Amino acid sequence: MGQSEPTRIIGIDPGLRRTGWGLIESLGNSLRFVASGTIRSNADLDLASRLCQLHDGLHEIVHAHMPHEAAVEHTFVNKDATATLKLGQARGIALLVPALAGLPVAEYAPNTVKKSVIGVGHGDKKQIHKMVRVLMPKAQFDTDDAADALAIAICHAHHRQSIVGRLKLAASL
Amino acid sequence: MGQSEPTRIIGIDPGLRRTGWGLIESLGNSLRFVASGTIRSNADLDLASRLCQLHDGLHEIVHAHMPHEAAVEHTFVNKDATATLKLGQARGIALLVPALAGLPVAEYAPNTVKKSVIGVGHGDKKQIHKMVRVLMPKAQFDTDDAADALAIAICHAHHRQSIVGRLKLAASL
Repeated sequence: MGQSEPTRIIGIDPGLRRTGWGLIESLGNSLRFVASGTIRSNADLDLASRLCQLHDGLHEIVHAHMPHEAAVEHTFVNKDATATLKLGQARGIALLVPALAGLPVAEYAPNTVKKSVIGVGHGDKKQIHKMVRVLMPKAQFDTDDAADALAIAICHAHHRQSIVGRLKLAASL
Repeated sequence: MGQSEPTRIIGIDPGLRRTGWGLIESLGNSLRFVASGTIRSNADLDLASRLCQLHDGLHEIVHAHMPHEAAVEHTFVNKDATATLKLGQARGIALLVPALAGLPVAEYAPNTVKKSVIGVGHGDKKQIHKMVRVLMPKAQFDTDDAADALAIAICHAHHRQSIVGRLKLAASL
């Protein structure tokens, strides 16, 4: 890919009930909003069927938009083990789908995402959403999860050179 | 499927490092060992690539052996959140792969598996392995995880009528 071609990045904020996704293009220091949305799973279904819904939704988006790289938030949950296990299962799907499509998948801690978007490692959702709109005035999102996914994609745009190089190196070993 | 056709069941004991699997056939009260094994992920790779390895390994087994139903252990980890998140991610793949192949996927708590195999809700790994061999004299397994996967499959053979009915009902709603 030449330097004049933008890199298309998908950010994913995983959750069993709602998984947010955000697509942006990054070229040099400029960012462009492409699309965002929220994949929902039906809480009345059994767990395996819900994971299939997340898989199918993400698979459709990855194959429709053909991003070059993916980024997923590395969330630590300090609530109960059941909530952590649920998040882990959704997160497994969020990591798997882009990796199966051949994309390098980077992971970022929530503090790193916040630092990238609002300049400091702490801040509430409102500040993040506001800065997503400052950085990409055309950004649209239907849920907090989609906005967070865009923030993760922006974070990756800022960090990608070193991270993707490391992932490619690891995969080639 | 007529009553004279055995039901082929895959049991899965998920783990990021090692995921055990065990295939059995169940017909009335009789059980038959088919195959078992262990899928390993390379700890030197990034998480998304390791989940791909688990996915590819399970996908190959499911499509080679064409089981009718799947059962996965519903493990609760009471250690740290990081270990629980790791297990959750591997478990997401273990539930997803058979579900994508159209299999109903049942989940069993460890105590239910133990009760099914050794008659009581507690007992160590040695007792479980011994009883797996008593119930299926031809059973072979290369790791504890593969033996546990066979125990999960046996548990499902004992519980399947009611569980699969419920899953099918839920999916049809």
